[in-house]
Amino acid sequence: MKNFIFFTTILALLLTTSVNAMMKKTGYYCMPCGNDCDTIAYSGPGTCPHCGMKLYTQPEIENLKRNQQKQIKVAFYLQQGVEVLDFAGPMEVFTAAGFEVFTVSKTKDPVLSQGVLKIIPDYDIKDAPEADILAFFGGGSNNITDDNEVMQWIKGYKRPQYYFSVCTGAFALGKAGLLDGLTATTFHMSIGSLRKACPNTKVLSDVRFVDNGKIMTTAGISAGIDGALHLVAKIKGMSAAKNVTTYMEYDKWVPEQGLIVDKAK
Amino acid sequence: MKNFIFFTTILALLLTTSVNAMMKKTGYYCMPCGNDCDTIAYSGPGTCPHCGMKLYTQPEIENLKRNQQKQIKVAFYLQQGVEVLDFAGPMEVFTAAGFEVFTVSKTKDPVLSQGVLKIIPDYDIKDAPEADILAFFGGGSNNITDDNEVMQWIKGYKRPQYYFSVCTGAFALGKAGLLDGLTATTFHMSIGSLRKACPNTKVLSDVRFVDNGKIMTTAGISAGIDGALHLVAKIKGMSAAKNVTTYMEYDKWVPEQGLIVDKAK
Repeated sequence: MKNFIFFTTILALLLTTSVNAMMKKTGYYCMPCGNDCDTIAYSGPGTCPHCGMKLYTQPEIENLKRNQQKQIKVAFYLQQGVEVLDFAGPMEVFTAAGFEVFTVSKTKDPVLSQGVLKIIPDYDIKDAPEADILAFFGGGSNNITDDNEVMQWIKGYKRPQYYFSVCTGAFALGKAGLLDGLTATTFHMSIGSLRKACPNTKVLSDVRFVDNGKIMTTAGISAGIDGALHLVAKIKGMSAAKNVTTYMEYDKWVPEQGLIVDKAK
Repeated sequence: MKNFIFFTTILALLLTTSVNAMMKKTGYYCMPCGNDCDTIAYSGPGTCPHCGMKLYTQPEIENLKRNQQKQIKVAFYLQQGVEVLDFAGPMEVFTAAGFEVFTVSKTKDPVLSQGVLKIIPDYDIKDAPEADILAFFGGGSNNITDDNEVMQWIKGYKRPQYYFSVCTGAFALGKAGLLDGLTATTFHMSIGSLRKACPNTKVLSDVRFVDNGKIMTTAGISAGIDGALHLVAKIKGMSAAKNVTTYMEYDKWVPEQGLIVDKAK
């Protein structure tokens, strides 16, 4: 019995010392990128040699906590002709918030964005994994809505927690019937077209984003940044969203420029 | 002589009729993308099936004028780990302004941006063509400054009309000696490091961008959008820049948040 108490005391002491050491010990970690390097502690500032993200100093225990949290997975559907800022703004916001982002396209062929940027998608519609957020963007959005295979994929995709669209990405959600009975917005030059395409949707022209609870649409191009920040605030709290705005030097965010309808759908 | 007058009159009439027809005739054209499809007139709205850009209606003559203007060429140097919004913001702005953008990296291997986005560069440092603007971005900027081959390429590149950097892209310009004696800015967490790396440069922490005439640096991440808009205003006039802000729904641009030093260098 004496031996048991002795060893238990020693074990408790070792554990306490170890946790205390972790709380005191700081390291330099990359911004969360979803790769294995998220757990590597570097000895000084700079950038992560694995993913190239900037390094931040924080206690080891905080990094452990960060990596133990369930990572929100975001699927970015990128079609031929996707507008570059439409997706890149939310990609910056979501990755800086610690979400795991991956890209999907109809096939694994390179996607040409804005007539300039050649992107290799991570997945195609045959092997794309499930996600918590499924996101669509403008620029060539008819390459989604006119493609039966892609539309079937959207309809058959395991219902994510949130649908998110930027600019004319709203047409993909509309064609899939996801905007029926809801309020939405889109690119300023496509407000009339979305009203025609989705007669059962109230389409607004004077908001940066509309949040129906589980389905969010944003206005054109740069408005995707604002909508993504709103989604971060909704999932992780306003202080997490504010941390992202500080990091990306975007104090121009005005949360009130969006409309929160907040229906259950 | 009579014949000569007759044929000249007929020719003049035909030319006038033709120009009048071009002035009256409208078509749907893609936003300028630098590809051959810039000259194709479509019969209705939608997106260009070649580059995926949105179509706009305008008189044929206006499109002809647009395509006859010398296109400003912008080289985007993308290193491993480049921050996605750092380059995507200016890419949106410059392409919407009609500039011809291309990407360059050390090799033609895919570049991983933000630990997420896989990009195939158009050129490597051995075959990259000349440009009017040479641009550098943050995220893994030590993959530029620590690489002798890339630094030699920058120093040996035919001097462009403008150098442009976003975020810690300023370290590339600094290491190449291009910021000596100038005023500059960078990512808010790297102000101190840039001061150490460039002791002959006045590094400011309270501006969105600094314009020294031919060398521009911007603050972090989202500030690249503001700096790129300033460069468009400088090259094509304020109304061209305002057209871009309208198109991309970025009425948050405040031109006065930048400092114009406007030295000849």
